[in-house]
Amino acid sequence: MTARIYLDWNATAPLRPEARRAMVAAMDILGNPASVHAEGRAARAIVERARMQVAAAADADPEDVVFTSGATESAAAALFGRDIDSGGIEHPSVLNWTRASLRVSSSGSVEVEEPARTALQVASGETGIIQNLPKGIAVADATQAFGKIPFSFRESGAECAMVSAHKIGGPKGVGALLTRKSAPAEPLFRGGGQESGRRSGTENIVGIAGFGAAAEAAAEDLEGGAWSGVEELRDFLESALRENAPEIAFIGEGAMRLPNTSCFAARGWKGESQVIQMDIEGFAISAGAACSSGKVGPNAALLAMGIDDSLARSAIRISIGPSTFREDVSQFAKKWITCYKRRQMRGRAGILRTEAQQA
Amino acid sequence: MTARIYLDWNATAPLRPEARRAMVAAMDILGNPASVHAEGRAARAIVERARMQVAAAADADPEDVVFTSGATESAAAALFGRDIDSGGIEHPSVLNWTRASLRVSSSGSVEVEEPARTALQVASGETGIIQNLPKGIAVADATQAFGKIPFSFRESGAECAMVSAHKIGGPKGVGALLTRKSAPAEPLFRGGGQESGRRSGTENIVGIAGFGAAAEAAAEDLEGGAWSGVEELRDFLESALRENAPEIAFIGEGAMRLPNTSCFAARGWKGESQVIQMDIEGFAISAGAACSSGKVGPNAALLAMGIDDSLARSAIRISIGPSTFREDVSQFAKKWITCYKRRQMRGRAGILRTEAQQA
Repeated sequence: MTARIYLDWNATAPLRPEARRAMVAAMDILGNPASVHAEGRAARAIVERARMQVAAAADADPEDVVFTSGATESAAAALFGRDIDSGGIEHPSVLNWTRASLRVSSSGSVEVEEPARTALQVASGETGIIQNLPKGIAVADATQAFGKIPFSFRESGAECAMVSAHKIGGPKGVGALLTRKSAPAEPLFRGGGQESGRRSGTENIVGIAGFGAAAEAAAEDLEGGAWSGVEELRDFLESALRENAPEIAFIGEGAMRLPNTSCFAARGWKGESQVIQMDIEGFAISAGAACSSGKVGPNAALLAMGIDDSLARSAIRISIGPSTFREDVSQFAKKWITCYKRRQMRGRAGILRTEAQQA
Repeated sequence: MTARIYLDWNATAPLRPEARRAMVAAMDILGNPASVHAEGRAARAIVERARMQVAAAADADPEDVVFTSGATESAAAALFGRDIDSGGIEHPSVLNWTRASLRVSSSGSVEVEEPARTALQVASGETGIIQNLPKGIAVADATQAFGKIPFSFRESGAECAMVSAHKIGGPKGVGALLTRKSAPAEPLFRGGGQESGRRSGTENIVGIAGFGAAAEAAAEDLEGGAWSGVEELRDFLESALRENAPEIAFIGEGAMRLPNTSCFAARGWKGESQVIQMDIEGFAISAGAACSSGKVGPNAALLAMGIDDSLARSAIRISIGPSTFREDVSQFAKKWITCYKRRQMRGRAGILRTEAQQA
């Protein structure tokens, strides 16, 4: 394989060296954190340290942090059996448990009616659009925002929030439900009574250790301004594309967006085809949420914003991060523009041929 | 800390070197397995390889294997919303979703009435007692049996079964639900549609890689006879204890048991006190299921067998594995007997003092 360029951070971010080190170290810890002996206590210490790290990064109390197997589980735990409204732009793990009855504006913002019975993403993984989170929302999906823009669980007044390790450079398959002790969540897993009875099951020690380390490093990156550099690169990418392909539509262009995300559509060129072509050229990008990859159809989040089917089918998403180089973005822009222009020329040639035949 | 001796394998087994290597290698795989690009396909390959390994070890079809965050999640997925009977010896993750209405004999066997609406453990983690699994049981909890004795999902005719990685030398926080495609399980997690729609959520790649490698190594150990050696050590331990403390009761002594488990009770000496005292002396043991550790009270599984409260409160569990040395077991036996005799002498001295005072 030639050198690859990874531009799909919203699907999953590269593992941070800090997370990797913490995970390898945790492999030496033998005990079950529920055991009272020294080996058990050592395992327990790893979980509790990570809980402090995640709590600090999300500005939550450590006792608000319930470790889960990821944001999908956190969403199920937060939403199961409840009567919650949402907008159609939410992630499928939220949409599946809610009534997508709320209006979504053409700029991608959800018109919340009753915060206390609403689930709302802090930011979209697909378009990067940031919501204006009303105080006291029932469920805040912070999965894509966490680590990329400041998020304070405390200040949000949200009853619950979902966060995921692998979006911030931790391992896949671990996340947390942030939930106030007063929140009415029925535990989805019952048994040994782990996580103060809120989530039974032996803890994923290695994964949790990696999550904690990633959360700490991500918070430092964010404070240190690493994401301003990311935003510059994203804007540089969009300028380059706009200059060479003025017809393409940037989704959410006027809205507040995550610094790392660009979603754009070249009408008539299917998103899935672009993903495959760019993959062959050495670039990892996506045509929507990773978990919808392989499913053929328009991007549901874009349809919910009122974008027409043909344009929604032509959208792709570029998402980058603090370790993306200007050269990566620049190479992608060049290659994409070349493919785009070649395609346009073939299209024009086709029209000319058709006209010649008709003449 | 002086050299420790770990005799609590049923709580969690040491990470196998094969699992560790597979986990470290998986950390280099960047993609989200749901992504269609090369990075995504590489991550997908790890999951599918592990699925083959776990399927082979459990004698199941790869498509029967649904990866979960552990046996507690698997139990919830198998049992949620269903009307299932069980015996009181089951693990809390099963008991919580079932009606513990079935009779348990004094030798620990559950009297199953209708297999198709029963959840039954293949073997007990607390006593090691092996059940006579009737054909076509609804839910087989193979968590403690898997890897220690032969278990064939195919031959069991079970509709679903639970297995866990960390009981066989894989990482904590990953497991599987074995389930035939025809089984009526409603997915507990919904969203991206991973695991053929049966368990949404980005997969725990590092953990799943470790689970696969551990399953393969465990199956080889089992075939190679590693557990016969374990059984000899267990029997050696029990002989040593019996010889020096003939009063102690071995739970499930006459029954078929896991080769590595010994549960015994010295009436009047609380299990929790034994665990703490042995921990100070350098041994990791337990007084029941790890997840009940820290909870004061008699061992519920023993009560369900009709063992009286005072004896049940005095039980401890020793559980060993293929990397346990004879010397480990021998040192434990010596130390336990010393503590036991000292305790008895103090007891007798107390009686003498009382008699002298009364005289």
